[in-house]
Amino acid sequence: MTPIITLLTDFGLKDTYTAQMKGIILSISPETKIVDITHQIPPQDILQAAYLLSTATKHFPKETIHIVVIDPGVGGARKAIVIQTKRSLLVGPDNGVLTLAAEEEGITTIVQITNKKYMLNKISKTFHGRDIFAPAAAFLSKGIPLSDLGPELNSQNITYLPIEKAKIIEEKIVGQIIHIDRFGNAVTNIPKEITEKFGITYGDKIRIKINEKLKEGEKIKFVSTFSQAKKGEIIALINSDDKLELSINQGSAEKILNLKVKLPLEIKSPA
Amino acid sequence: MTPIITLLTDFGLKDTYTAQMKGIILSISPETKIVDITHQIPPQDILQAAYLLSTATKHFPKETIHIVVIDPGVGGARKAIVIQTKRSLLVGPDNGVLTLAAEEEGITTIVQITNKKYMLNKISKTFHGRDIFAPAAAFLSKGIPLSDLGPELNSQNITYLPIEKAKIIEEKIVGQIIHIDRFGNAVTNIPKEITEKFGITYGDKIRIKINEKLKEGEKIKFVSTFSQAKKGEIIALINSDDKLELSINQGSAEKILNLKVKLPLEIKSPA
Amino acid sequence: MTPIITLLTDFGLKDTYTAQMKGIILSISPETKIVDITHQIPPQDILQAAYLLSTATKHFPKETIHIVVIDPGVGGARKAIVIQTKRSLLVGPDNGVLTLAAEEEGITTIVQITNKKYMLNKISKTFHGRDIFAPAAAFLSKGIPLSDLGPELNSQNITYLPIEKAKIIEEKIVGQIIHIDRFGNAVTNIPKEITEKFGITYGDKIRIKINEKLKEGEKIKFVSTFSQAKKGEIIALINSDDKLELSINQGSAEKILNLKVKLPLEIKSPA
Repeated sequence: MTPIITLLTDFGLKDTYTAQMKGIILSISPETKIVDITHQIPPQDILQAAYLLSTATKHFPKETIHIVVIDPGVGGARKAIVIQTKRSLLVGPDNGVLTLAAEEEGITTIVQITNKKYMLNKISKTFHGRDIFAPAAAFLSKGIPLSDLGPELNSQNITYLPIEKAKIIEEKIVGQIIHIDRFGNAVTNIPKEITEKFGITYGDKIRIKINEKLKEGEKIKFVSTFSQAKKGEIIALINSDDKLELSINQGSAEKILNLKVKLPLEIKSPA
Repeated sequence: MTPIITLLTDFGLKDTYTAQMKGIILSISPETKIVDITHQIPPQDILQAAYLLSTATKHFPKETIHIVVIDPGVGGARKAIVIQTKRSLLVGPDNGVLTLAAEEEGITTIVQITNKKYMLNKISKTFHGRDIFAPAAAFLSKGIPLSDLGPELNSQNITYLPIEKAKIIEEKIVGQIIHIDRFGNAVTNIPKEITEKFGITYGDKIRIKINEKLKEGEKIKFVSTFSQAKKGEIIALINSDDKLELSINQGSAEKILNLKVKLPLEIKSPA
Repeated sequence: MTPIITLLTDFGLKDTYTAQMKGIILSISPETKIVDITHQIPPQDILQAAYLLSTATKHFPKETIHIVVIDPGVGGARKAIVIQTKRSLLVGPDNGVLTLAAEEEGITTIVQITNKKYMLNKISKTFHGRDIFAPAAAFLSKGIPLSDLGPELNSQNITYLPIEKAKIIEEKIVGQIIHIDRFGNAVTNIPKEITEKFGITYGDKIRIKINEKLKEGEKIKFVSTFSQAKKGEIIALINSDDKLELSINQGSAEKILNLKVKLPLEIKSPA
């Protein structure tokens, strides 16, 4: 099977950093397929990258190798690691950017990349994506054993993100917005299981408190799909990643409701 | 021959929707080559997507499979379809986004995608690009017969876009702007055949009426290529897709002439 | 070995120009891998493209074919050329966009593309990227001899960019900003060899004069990596392309110091 390496970075699209990594990968492993996940992570935004990685890896073939380069600590003390999960191999800095996806998939082994044999000869102090992560991933895609890259790490000795989970407190669901997509849809950290446990069903009107635009009391229609709403109507639905999402049919909930990542929100029981 | 699947969507580049589709395609058909056409269609802009699709498919190898996901009706009553043309296979929603390219290439067969065997096990209500179109295209690229996907549809039973064609009326060409490209060039719906029929030849000055910036009477030089114009000069030319285009050499006609998609325009006979 | 063709253009991402080129390449050479370098070069900015090309080609496998389409003179008298270097094949217009990378790699042969057998049947006047450069590169990737494309050119008969090199003048390094990256880091034309010759070592404070924000006298810490600086601190470092770069740790030097491409700068000896 053709090996696959994906790339998720905060490099944007106007520079050649991503292309430099692809050149290195193809120099080492010419048959590997390379797929871009996104390069539009806001600079140094580990949390956005961790969330978006977790939405993507589950849809790739098993054994896919995902490189993530959101690396404000490059050149410093942070480790370079590979996390093997039950599904994927995740390659990147030990700053928490890999662990959300890794824990969802189930961590099996963690290795620190220390073996210089699998790095570029000359290692810059500012671009380990090219000089360490890309070659490590490329050699893994050629079939070297994970253990060749360096010593195994205990799962307690890597960095995890301080991610708050949504929960039910006193007849309210308490959560936050974790991502806003291109369409202005606001994804929350509230999974489908919590809305189901809370007793929300399609057709309900739910009461959402989030900011001055949606004060306590407004009732939002909970629908199963966009086409059940009128154009411009504010709705809540379970999105394609099984998270509760605030949307405006054919409009931008972000703009109209003035939503931002990390805004907390509360949902009261259906009216 | 290695099969090719292309993707044209309004997903933008900051989310992982496109990558999720690629993961699904490569899970089903690991050898397929995937090519991005564009993901920068304005949200829900079926007309722009239809036009841009028609500029691209003719340059791909025969049998290429093109997936288009501009899908405001996802989860509702609109059908999922595949149009086979004399050149390509076009996969997407039945909302007209496929038909401009399809009619230019010549429609041979239309099929509605209904066979759950070729969809993901779990089908979301909001992302059929990933759950229905991507798997259908991937299975087609592996060689399943088109008829396995579902029942054949009559070409009168699918949706077409209300696209106005340019025409000659009383010594004027009447058309409209259908696209503005990255350089600010304004592409019209006036094909080369109409300018030829109208008697416009290179070197002519043509009179264009379009808005307050180009009122009736201004004469625009009709050239064969940019380098025949001075820097900053307003010109008209036949573009690489054989459409009449308004341009400013090394400048933006969009900005300087305040042009927009759907603006109507009239061209009078050469002075 | 699978042949590789890369693309570097000013086409942006909202049009289908790049996809059209990919369709042509895959029609001629279905097994070629295509890699995007960037398409976000500002329109017609030959200098930015030349610089960015030079940062990327060195990281690709030998024999990689790089197509560059920054082509304001398309359709006019400028030649279409291929430069073979000790490492790569560079395909594009003869306007200087290829020569910076070519000279760094060492030019071996230059050929003008004139053989219509290796062009599309119909050649537009405005899109030689698709009609001439893409087919030439695709045929090269299939193994045709370079000399089949057309006559050899003498290296004195092609166009070079007027690129100023940094130099040491009267106890100052005199250079300029040549690129600003996605993070707001300002890359200068001052290579590591000049900073070393000038006697700058890590930990030094260097005095940089550049604009009203950095008048003569300000001392900037010269560090080996971002993590040696406090968040928000102005620093200078040698970047991953071995050029001196002005940065702000986890901030934008471009915004905070009001930096622009082509700004001249002077560096005085360490305090």
